[in-house]
Amino acid sequence: MPRFKLTIEYDGGPYVGWQRQSNGATVQAALEDAVEAFCGERVEVAGAGRTDTGVHATGQVAHIELETERFDANTVMKAINALVRPEPIAVIAAEAVSDDFHARFSAIERRYRYLILNRRAPAALDAGRVWHVSVPLDVGAMHEAAQRLVGHHDFTTFRATQCQAPSPEKTLDQLDVTRDGERIVVIARARSFLHHQVRNMVGTLKLVGEGKWSADDVTAALEARARAAGGPTAPADGLYLTDVIYPAG
Amino acid sequence: MPRFKLTIEYDGGPYVGWQRQSNGATVQAALEDAVEAFCGERVEVAGAGRTDTGVHATGQVAHIELETERFDANTVMKAINALVRPEPIAVIAAEAVSDDFHARFSAIERRYRYLILNRRAPAALDAGRVWHVSVPLDVGAMHEAAQRLVGHHDFTTFRATQCQAPSPEKTLDQLDVTRDGERIVVIARARSFLHHQVRNMVGTLKLVGEGKWSADDVTAALEARARAAGGPTAPADGLYLTDVIYPAG
Repeated sequence: MPRFKLTIEYDGGPYVGWQRQSNGATVQAALEDAVEAFCGERVEVAGAGRTDTGVHATGQVAHIELETERFDANTVMKAINALVRPEPIAVIAAEAVSDDFHARFSAIERRYRYLILNRRAPAALDAGRVWHVSVPLDVGAMHEAAQRLVGHHDFTTFRATQCQAPSPEKTLDQLDVTRDGERIVVIARARSFLHHQVRNMVGTLKLVGEGKWSADDVTAALEARARAAGGPTAPADGLYLTDVIYPAG
Repeated sequence: MPRFKLTIEYDGGPYVGWQRQSNGATVQAALEDAVEAFCGERVEVAGAGRTDTGVHATGQVAHIELETERFDANTVMKAINALVRPEPIAVIAAEAVSDDFHARFSAIERRYRYLILNRRAPAALDAGRVWHVSVPLDVGAMHEAAQRLVGHHDFTTFRATQCQAPSPEKTLDQLDVTRDGERIVVIARARSFLHHQVRNMVGTLKLVGEGKWSADDVTAALEARARAAGGPTAPADGLYLTDVIYPAG
């Protein structure tokens, strides 16, 4: 049966997250409804990352498998985009893949971007798309402290208490903090992340940016292996799933 | 009486434009309501550019004059921002200015940015913030043709038929077209613009990008001095008033 890899952009604002659930609108359900409207098949749109309520994506990846062999990837993309309207969701790329491609299990890396609007005035054009922090943040100190988290660690301190991952150990490959005018951009890269890991790391680095915490405090928090030792969870508004990487070929 | 220069960012989507009018919500009215709520004075918030329905700003400039001398610029900014919520409007800078400063009449240059999302998939995260053009556009050809419009000209071809400016002659100082990934960015700079001038120029350059028009066709349209000779009006969604420039000191 034909299987397609879909790359998906969405505004997470109106949704209770990616994953289909009974208590609100989800990106997955909107896409599954669009697929059904176009070909009559009720299939699972299986995503690589289960983004939370309000979290955005510029490069979520999902796969679908259809019974019919009538459609090529370009047709699937155009049909879903036409039928998912007016939801703020778009399939930005589609390709036919082999039966062994699985959006979640084949992925070897996820990349997230977190945007902080660091100015006195609140967000207007970017409301809901950034975390507004009005106190000036020291981006150099944030980046330096972030390097304490890079590598293979037990990330219990940065893991939501309801996280269901079998192990709190992960390898964080990159955590860069840079300034672009009044925006601060955090880039995080890993094979996979724990629940709320990026937002909890960003909430902690904000304490460093304000001068309340040192890099050594971040190390001590990591080593405490306790959620209570970490900083607060940064809001969902600023978080974007930007890329999911698969083995070449 | 104290006079303040305000730099303002807004999402134009919910408004029938900057200027107060009876047929819908405007940015000016929202700001005037906020000023009144904070100090009890009903004053005009006089803007530098009368942006149209749906047009955005990252750097609109306005001035207000208050009776009371109790407030400094920082307080004015914070109070307006607190009271204009939840409208997508923010005062991003405020400063005390002399009596002879007028946001509109003192301005010596306006800058606009126009964003085109040039990809097959429709906009999701940027819906309402860009013009989605799905056919591939030749940005080099667009930029080259744009240079035919730079300089002092009679811009009747690119002027809305309802434009009330006394003369159709303007000096266009810059019209640059560049690509940034799947976005095309048009930067326009002039002392002042005619009604719909930027959107009419962009709509014409899109014909060049598609290969339907040559640079010579743009020159011929300009020389025709007739709105019917120009391309269609690009949508408001992609247009941003980014800067208003005043004489130094």
